[in-house]
Amino acid sequence: MPHMPQSTRLGRHVVIEDGVSIGEHVVIGHHSVILQGTQIRDHVTIGSNCVVGIQPAANERMRKDSDAERNLVIEAGTKIGNLVSLYAGSTIGETVFIGDHASIRENVQIEEASVIGRAAIIELNTTIGKNCTVQTQAYVTGDTTLEDNVFIGPCVSMSNDKYMGAQAYSLKGPIIKQGAKIGNNASLLPGITIGSHAIVGAGAVVTKDIGANTIVAGVPAKKIDA
Amino acid sequence: MPHMPQSTRLGRHVVIEDGVSIGEHVVIGHHSVILQGTQIRDHVTIGSNCVVGIQPAANERMRKDSDAERNLVIEAGTKIGNLVSLYAGSTIGETVFIGDHASIRENVQIEEASVIGRAAIIELNTTIGKNCTVQTQAYVTGDTTLEDNVFIGPCVSMSNDKYMGAQAYSLKGPIIKQGAKIGNNASLLPGITIGSHAIVGAGAVVTKDIGANTIVAGVPAKKIDA
Amino acid sequence: MPHMPQSTRLGRHVVIEDGVSIGEHVVIGHHSVILQGTQIRDHVTIGSNCVVGIQPAANERMRKDSDAERNLVIEAGTKIGNLVSLYAGSTIGETVFIGDHASIRENVQIEEASVIGRAAIIELNTTIGKNCTVQTQAYVTGDTTLEDNVFIGPCVSMSNDKYMGAQAYSLKGPIIKQGAKIGNNASLLPGITIGSHAIVGAGAVVTKDIGANTIVAGVPAKKIDA
Repeated sequence: MPHMPQSTRLGRHVVIEDGVSIGEHVVIGHHSVILQGTQIRDHVTIGSNCVVGIQPAANERMRKDSDAERNLVIEAGTKIGNLVSLYAGSTIGETVFIGDHASIRENVQIEEASVIGRAAIIELNTTIGKNCTVQTQAYVTGDTTLEDNVFIGPCVSMSNDKYMGAQAYSLKGPIIKQGAKIGNNASLLPGITIGSHAIVGAGAVVTKDIGANTIVAGVPAKKIDA
Repeated sequence: MPHMPQSTRLGRHVVIEDGVSIGEHVVIGHHSVILQGTQIRDHVTIGSNCVVGIQPAANERMRKDSDAERNLVIEAGTKIGNLVSLYAGSTIGETVFIGDHASIRENVQIEEASVIGRAAIIELNTTIGKNCTVQTQAYVTGDTTLEDNVFIGPCVSMSNDKYMGAQAYSLKGPIIKQGAKIGNNASLLPGITIGSHAIVGAGAVVTKDIGANTIVAGVPAKKIDA
Repeated sequence: MPHMPQSTRLGRHVVIEDGVSIGEHVVIGHHSVILQGTQIRDHVTIGSNCVVGIQPAANERMRKDSDAERNLVIEAGTKIGNLVSLYAGSTIGETVFIGDHASIRENVQIEEASVIGRAAIIELNTTIGKNCTVQTQAYVTGDTTLEDNVFIGPCVSMSNDKYMGAQAYSLKGPIIKQGAKIGNNASLLPGITIGSHAIVGAGAVVTKDIGANTIVAGVPAKKIDA
């Protein structure tokens, strides 16, 4: 095990690989695994049975990421639940909350005070601003941008592959502008932009760009009056 | 470790914190973590890599629950899968089945013989009656009531926050009356009531109350003939 | 622990039960649990905190499977993520990739080079052909057939129980013919057939059979021009 401050509180059977750095007053639950090179700042809490700092893997049919050798950084004051998986090459900002069973891939940036819900999944190359809420079981696809104060309801689904694997295509997730809110179980198609403070109704299927301050609902989603 | 009956069968590297009580003929799989104060009754089975009896946590933007200091109680004959997370302050009734990867929050009451599917999530302050089925990946939001014999299909989504974090609002999940059935991937909005023995079609988006014995489908959901 | 080749690389606190067979150059991450009778072929990689080779369990209200005593077989070159659960009685083919948090039940056959996404769930008695992609959080219900080269988008939902537990009924999942593509968050009803190279739009609810080379979208799904 690497050097740890006296203020560290470790559960039982915790595995900490070489090259991990740990700040002051860090708490790590039972059976959690902290993989090589992970950087954990002050006052971070990690639950039990987590796997943190995973190196990307793939089979021959999957996209590989060239620069994933960077470390995972978990900034000060962030709380991570139980049974969570986090990849190398991402930065989790200060005072973020990550729920149980959540998974965050490589090359993701999450800014301060955002909340990632239970079993939510954030795919690679995605940026999440400050004070965002991504609720339970929501799926944020790769190559997505969430600006500040965005709300993603439970079970929201996104995609980034217009041709579903059939054509060479530059993958592009949605761009969701500041303060926009997406209702539960809505579906967003690849590459669309949701304008600032727009609202997407529960279960809507959004097939084109939505302007700022607009409210849409239905399949396909159409503008409605508030 | 606390005192355990001779009939207990423990896997390897199980962690049992102080103040846990364990009945007769309990089986706990490898690497599972039983946190402080959990009460496990007779003939309960828990799989591997579970985390059981979790104390609620939050960051400063999230709701905190004042009375979560009560214990988790798992009643006799209940079976819990692998990689499951269960919170303190909830009671799981007799002969309940909880699938792998499921998560159950604090202040939840689940009555006897109900089935919670694989990767299903039950949020806080929710009551689930007898003989209910909550299928795989379904999301039961906070402050929800399921009466007896309710069927929630796979991937059903619910919400309890009408203003998606924008306004102070008393959170309120759906009320689902006895014997109602919700089809797969349907979406339920906050505070609606689904009448007894009503049926909601797959993929429907339910935006208002549904009467007893009614069948609805579509987006938004409308009454149809059987 | 059973005999292992010298080429095996084991993480810390790995549990390997009796009757497990392990090929050459196998890698198993920290805290993973390999249950009785599992057969792991050459060059297989398994992440951390997995549970592999689970025997089916049920309460008195659930379907039991009579012939689940067969072993789990993981064929050569397959990669399995972290926090994954795999059941006994299934065969995972060569060079398959299984993402973190995924779960695969008993009596499932997955053929070579297919990809099962992060947190995807494959229920019992299901067959998945070669070169299929089942994306993140997709739900493949029991008794389903996916032919070769099928694409299942993220968060797709399927069901196999027409009467939602209300009647005795032979459970039947969808049949998805070769090369068909299902868009994200679409819902498929029990027993329908999706023709070869058909395309189902995101968020569609498919209530009847879809012919080969057909494109459908909407709720309920209707034919559209490309």
